[in-house]
Amino acid sequence: MKELLADSPYVPEGFRRWFEAARKTGYAQVERVPLDSVQGWDCGPDAPALTHRSGRFFSVEGLRTSHSRGAVPCWDQPIINQPETGILGILVRWTDGVLHCLVQAKAEPGNINGIQLSPTVQATRSNFTGVHRGKSVPYLAYFQNAPADRVIVDVRQSEQASWFLRKRNRNMIVETHEDIAATEGFRWLPVAEVLGLLRIDDLVGMDLRSVLACLPVADAQHSTRNITRTITRTGVPRGPVTTAQIRSWLTAARSEIEVRTEQVPLAELEGWRRGPTAITHESGRFFDVIGVRVRASGREVREWAQPMIAAHGTGVVAFLTTRFDGELHVLVHQRVEPGFVDVVELGPTVQCTERNYDQLPPAARPLFLDDVLKAPADRILLDVTLSDEGGRLFRTRSRHLLVETDQRPDHPDFRWMTPAQLSALLRHSHYVNMQARSLLACLHALRAPAVPVPTPGQGATRT
Amino acid sequence: MKELLADSPYVPEGFRRWFEAARKTGYAQVERVPLDSVQGWDCGPDAPALTHRSGRFFSVEGLRTSHSRGAVPCWDQPIINQPETGILGILVRWTDGVLHCLVQAKAEPGNINGIQLSPTVQATRSNFTGVHRGKSVPYLAYFQNAPADRVIVDVRQSEQASWFLRKRNRNMIVETHEDIAATEGFRWLPVAEVLGLLRIDDLVGMDLRSVLACLPVADAQHSTRNITRTITRTGVPRGPVTTAQIRSWLTAARSEIEVRTEQVPLAELEGWRRGPTAITHESGRFFDVIGVRVRASGREVREWAQPMIAAHGTGVVAFLTTRFDGELHVLVHQRVEPGFVDVVELGPTVQCTERNYDQLPPAARPLFLDDVLKAPADRILLDVTLSDEGGRLFRTRSRHLLVETDQRPDHPDFRWMTPAQLSALLRHSHYVNMQARSLLACLHALRAPAVPVPTPGQGATRT
Repeated sequence: MKELLADSPYVPEGFRRWFEAARKTGYAQVERVPLDSVQGWDCGPDAPALTHRSGRFFSVEGLRTSHSRGAVPCWDQPIINQPETGILGILVRWTDGVLHCLVQAKAEPGNINGIQLSPTVQATRSNFTGVHRGKSVPYLAYFQNAPADRVIVDVRQSEQASWFLRKRNRNMIVETHEDIAATEGFRWLPVAEVLGLLRIDDLVGMDLRSVLACLPVADAQHSTRNITRTITRTGVPRGPVTTAQIRSWLTAARSEIEVRTEQVPLAELEGWRRGPTAITHESGRFFDVIGVRVRASGREVREWAQPMIAAHGTGVVAFLTTRFDGELHVLVHQRVEPGFVDVVELGPTVQCTERNYDQLPPAARPLFLDDVLKAPADRILLDVTLSDEGGRLFRTRSRHLLVETDQRPDHPDFRWMTPAQLSALLRHSHYVNMQARSLLACLHALRAPAVPVPTPGQGATRT
Repeated sequence: MKELLADSPYVPEGFRRWFEAARKTGYAQVERVPLDSVQGWDCGPDAPALTHRSGRFFSVEGLRTSHSRGAVPCWDQPIINQPETGILGILVRWTDGVLHCLVQAKAEPGNINGIQLSPTVQATRSNFTGVHRGKSVPYLAYFQNAPADRVIVDVRQSEQASWFLRKRNRNMIVETHEDIAATEGFRWLPVAEVLGLLRIDDLVGMDLRSVLACLPVADAQHSTRNITRTITRTGVPRGPVTTAQIRSWLTAARSEIEVRTEQVPLAELEGWRRGPTAITHESGRFFDVIGVRVRASGREVREWAQPMIAAHGTGVVAFLTTRFDGELHVLVHQRVEPGFVDVVELGPTVQCTERNYDQLPPAARPLFLDDVLKAPADRILLDVTLSDEGGRLFRTRSRHLLVETDQRPDHPDFRWMTPAQLSALLRHSHYVNMQARSLLACLHALRAPAVPVPTPGQGATRT
């Protein structure tokens, strides 16, 4: 097996050895199978939805979405429905003045390279309520029974709402004072080291990025200053705004935009067809619904089959960044996605798959896409390709870009925000989407090792 | 017409004269009619739901709810479905150093006394998108086109989720520097005076209370102090907790409690029957769905008919209050209601209709109900009966009680919070239910005239 991490300057030697060893024992063998051969599932050509025979886990359903704004007012698609809230939990501990976190080298069937770094616990409710009839989830009790004053982060956040219908995970960071041993496949690492590893392709998994993005960031020196007023004639600010103004902007959109979704049988989805092995869009774009058979070690169950979503092409997620009064700001986009619980969330400046637009007229290209793809090298702060969650998504990944700009756009769907403002909203559910959280974790990485981390006992402070 | 406000010590003479005059011109005449005679609506005995012929406004549907916790795991009921977000807006202005708000004496068919005090704007989307084909909504443009730095409150909040399915209104407070005249039926009043009027039965309407509850309350002196740890062996704190701990407590409940709702035809609702004039529960409890015909002045449309919900008996909503380190705290209850968007919200200590329990065993009585109903007079801070929203609810009202206690309960579904903590959560949607907001407005009233109000220009502060 080729070593992945041999040449990277960001990889400490100790980590490299542990990770390569874990790859050898923890690898998941995955084989694509035709949808109607997915064992344990009802995936026949006429099935209205792809469902597990137990009625649990998740299903792939047909969804018809219409909304009152946007270039495409109505479309059909398959979507994953999993109406339960899993736990993504990181256990942290201060050792010699350095904050460490307990990570896992976890195999998932959709993972590029087989294993990626995951949170201490990454479990669906089916995992921990015993539906899998597999092994128990290690370290789960530290999250389920966490003392209230040791909980640093505890908030439900959305997954990719183009592929998941109203799916939320409970993102948790819990501090321990105990000397808890890392069992096989787990390792205590400095948080700053994990953030550094975000510069390496397909290494730090999506669920770990999601939770890391929720790390509290202090913004004391700016919390009471007045904002320079840069509101244009269009009423859209070209400069900083208050968090209250961001909330009001979201309230207006959520009150005014109407999004209707309706479940339809898979066979009736407009533009989609059931082929011999997969469900595909007739244009060959977007994604396929495929079947896989998995053999894995180090998991609750050693063999199983399941449907997955396999995206076509690598996505692009990017923040344009700039500085106001020396402080870094990112350009957030108020996005509508069919799977959001609440109409819109804040997303990256750019979030798309370029290939989906290659036969459309230039005017249909996503805003700012060319600004990030054609930026001069000296304005690119970060450029790394990271994977989406490999439990449901098959080798699906996005190029992550942080690009400096001097532009001051005044588009009504975009606003400049500081990472600290995003962090404040991340204490609550349904404000910041998965892709923006992934980029926010990368922003934390840029600031590492001076990364803002919670101080001991923070859970007991009244905020 | 008998004068209502003649004898109250809380009513300034100027207000009394204006209000009594408004009652004479603004009165809505309401007549109950059998459901199948509700003009413009499909309310026949076999209708699966009561719907307007235009397909707009609202409908009364059948709902089947099951949830994984609670005394009653599954039940059926009719519920109002209105999938649009209206605006409840108060215009405020500083005059001679006193914050004033523009209120309306508004007639609604369900109002006791005909008119009650309402926000400047109280409009469904149907009102202002012209479906009613009636008069335009006065002052609406001040909210729709509010400059970002004049918006003090802008957040969607739930309505009573036992009667409304996932209904939200956009609660707004907008500051103006203009000298805006109060047209007929409107009046500029000091905010402190409006809060004082909350001591009078059925005068300050529910929508006005909802928005007033969202007034920002400062809590600077306590924001960083450490909480005295009073966590018991059960893990439930008997004393103050941080707002982060409250959020974590809600996250856990929202992740773990499963609430499933399903639309069913009205005729199939278990325990409910369609009588000659109304839909009623066979026990005679809960509420009826009735029909009314309305003639009103001062509204968009002068005559119409509609179904309404008429509750049996007067409700009780109450906060137990206590002091920790001299600071007032209220005992909040984490409640499941079928119409909540997100599983649970924070409600009052007690929220029930006593009559619904009169034939059940004593163990089924709501927690703390007897503590508030049998409290000695010197521990009752406030006792006033206030009306629910009169546009959909027919003469439906609740006794509002604020009762001091020395109890320190450690029930897992209850926590002590300060009004400032509730206020911080009210900057976001879906944390604090309508009944708790109504009581919070009453708490503001207790503190009036020293009521905490926004200082000029607050909208421009970065928070």
